[in-house]
Amino acid sequence: MLPRPSGLVTLLTDFGPRDPYVGLMKGAVLRANQKATIIDFGHEVPPQDVMAGAFWLAAAIDQFPAGTVHVAVVDPGVGTSRRLLAMAAHECYWLAPDNGLLGHVFARDPAAEVRAIDLSHLALQPRSRTFHGRDVLAPIAGWLTSGRYGFSSLGPRVTDLAGASPFDGPPRVVHVDAFGNLVTNVAASALADVSHVRVGGHTVPLLATYAEAAPGELLALVGSFDRLEVAQNGGNAARTLGLSRGAPIELTHQKPR
Amino acid sequence: MLPRPSGLVTLLTDFGPRDPYVGLMKGAVLRANQKATIIDFGHEVPPQDVMAGAFWLAAAIDQFPAGTVHVAVVDPGVGTSRRLLAMAAHECYWLAPDNGLLGHVFARDPAAEVRAIDLSHLALQPRSRTFHGRDVLAPIAGWLTSGRYGFSSLGPRVTDLAGASPFDGPPRVVHVDAFGNLVTNVAASALADVSHVRVGGHTVPLLATYAEAAPGELLALVGSFDRLEVAQNGGNAARTLGLSRGAPIELTHQKPR
Amino acid sequence: MLPRPSGLVTLLTDFGPRDPYVGLMKGAVLRANQKATIIDFGHEVPPQDVMAGAFWLAAAIDQFPAGTVHVAVVDPGVGTSRRLLAMAAHECYWLAPDNGLLGHVFARDPAAEVRAIDLSHLALQPRSRTFHGRDVLAPIAGWLTSGRYGFSSLGPRVTDLAGASPFDGPPRVVHVDAFGNLVTNVAASALADVSHVRVGGHTVPLLATYAEAAPGELLALVGSFDRLEVAQNGGNAARTLGLSRGAPIELTHQKPR
Repeated sequence: MLPRPSGLVTLLTDFGPRDPYVGLMKGAVLRANQKATIIDFGHEVPPQDVMAGAFWLAAAIDQFPAGTVHVAVVDPGVGTSRRLLAMAAHECYWLAPDNGLLGHVFARDPAAEVRAIDLSHLALQPRSRTFHGRDVLAPIAGWLTSGRYGFSSLGPRVTDLAGASPFDGPPRVVHVDAFGNLVTNVAASALADVSHVRVGGHTVPLLATYAEAAPGELLALVGSFDRLEVAQNGGNAARTLGLSRGAPIELTHQKPR
Repeated sequence: MLPRPSGLVTLLTDFGPRDPYVGLMKGAVLRANQKATIIDFGHEVPPQDVMAGAFWLAAAIDQFPAGTVHVAVVDPGVGTSRRLLAMAAHECYWLAPDNGLLGHVFARDPAAEVRAIDLSHLALQPRSRTFHGRDVLAPIAGWLTSGRYGFSSLGPRVTDLAGASPFDGPPRVVHVDAFGNLVTNVAASALADVSHVRVGGHTVPLLATYAEAAPGELLALVGSFDRLEVAQNGGNAARTLGLSRGAPIELTHQKPR
Repeated sequence: MLPRPSGLVTLLTDFGPRDPYVGLMKGAVLRANQKATIIDFGHEVPPQDVMAGAFWLAAAIDQFPAGTVHVAVVDPGVGTSRRLLAMAAHECYWLAPDNGLLGHVFARDPAAEVRAIDLSHLALQPRSRTFHGRDVLAPIAGWLTSGRYGFSSLGPRVTDLAGASPFDGPPRVVHVDAFGNLVTNVAASALADVSHVRVGGHTVPLLATYAEAAPGELLALVGSFDRLEVAQNGGNAARTLGLSRGAPIELTHQKPR
């Protein structure tokens, strides 16, 4: 059952604030549907860092109204033959190049439906060879919200997406936030009998919130993404521990299972 | 007399552009009221700098339409027992943790009415212990604009807010802007007979605008916040003077009063 | 034939993200017309860099719906007697100080019509001498979209604008983007028989897209602005070549003309 487009279009890119690219995407959405509501999700994904972009998209699941169209452009392969995808999943739409950005969103919804965007069917002639976000994904986002095209007419159904979830694999840090919190791929639901976490040579207790640790103390907790994080009360855990994305962590269980 | 919510919701945070947090707050507002109009006020308040956040909020007074809901999240105490507040003041609504962010806005409106947000009354179960901006303040902003809850039903009335106005106290620099202008806490109305300002060992004249100073010259003027600023025509006063927030200033009066 | 205002207002400034100025402009637009839709075009034009701002505005031509009101504030002359302009061109409206920001937009539309904003006719008393973006241009953008004022009533018609197009003059780099692409002033239409480009002591081939160059190889191509760019497949051309804005380029023609 496909969700009804809500009129909301979020934009996620690695374009940064110093170039007109984000603005040109907004213009392209609005030329396709002037009544679309554009929401800046984020534009400072590290340049061409597809895994970081996949982390952002994973964070958006269930956080926006049903029918939101999420557009993501982290696209080192622009100009190659990589496909552009449209996906219906988690009651929203997701438009992105087929490079792994959609890996987690796809993996976590068994009912996800994916279309390979068919430019000739849509009579879409990209104006450039370098900016398919503006030339293809933005107008399609506008058309989905205006009803000019339904999801099913965007192209043939496909199932062979590039890339796995950024959360698959052994326990490790998958994102470091601006406050220095080390976000891991360990879901809250996997912490039932965990008492401590071992990270960067330190053993830190699993607590309910920052304030349960003494000032300056390291702790682990379930953070804003519903995943295990390592933090420092009143401090910057990443800097204190000298750790970054990819750092392994170990869970210590209260009792053997 | 409470203002009628206009549908506008502004967001002010210290989350920065490199994490999904701002986007998740937007999603939470829109899930509560998809018709809300979200305005990014600013997201680069220095991390956990409550006084800087209070300066931003002070700057918003009388600058947005009546009925705007301002949401501010600079929240080093998240996860402690600090309260979350809703305030009606200056014909707008203001939602923020009770940590001083609202100090100035409250101090300048004798008719300000403040409510301590009552989560159980609102049947609000925060999803996290780390992100009350998304889990509490954002949905309340949406509900205020949709009419699902009126201001008076958000919780009991309180009057004992944390924090004073960032503009109280002796004359000093309270903000340095990106152009190097030194914004002070001295209101334009206090400058009637002031001719010069003494700052960082320099005496600079009080003029009407940048162009009245010679190129490269330091000057004082009433700036965009209706407060005394120290500037340099064509230059960066903060860099030239080596001054930052907190630097004291002295006013020289034309004639003894 | 003047376009009908669409309700869209874009904002371009050099204010950056660390001050309330952008937010205050949004508030001023919304106080003039609460139903206006505000689009952040960009706020990190290098401080007081009018030519960079003119490049951004040039990039906006034909990229937004007809009737969009573009407001641009890069205004080193605020407080002097420089005029504030309103222009109807390319089926949109453009509001900016008369300092060259509008040079290209004006030069490329022979039917462009320009008005010098007449504050007393509009009964507009700027609140400050330092922030005409908020005090003049923002409310006028709101009034244009609300219909309170038509374009023709904003002030007398003028034709003597400051500044030429940033794209006039000899072939050279006019913008370096965050990916290190060197954007030049050479239009795609001028490349009919060009085979190579000489830049920074290198001769690079003109290709159709990044992927036609070997990994790490320099190339020239028509980029997202419909202009010649110098890029590096999988790399940062600006860093590799050590070049920045203003660097000259030479076109090598396949055969003598």
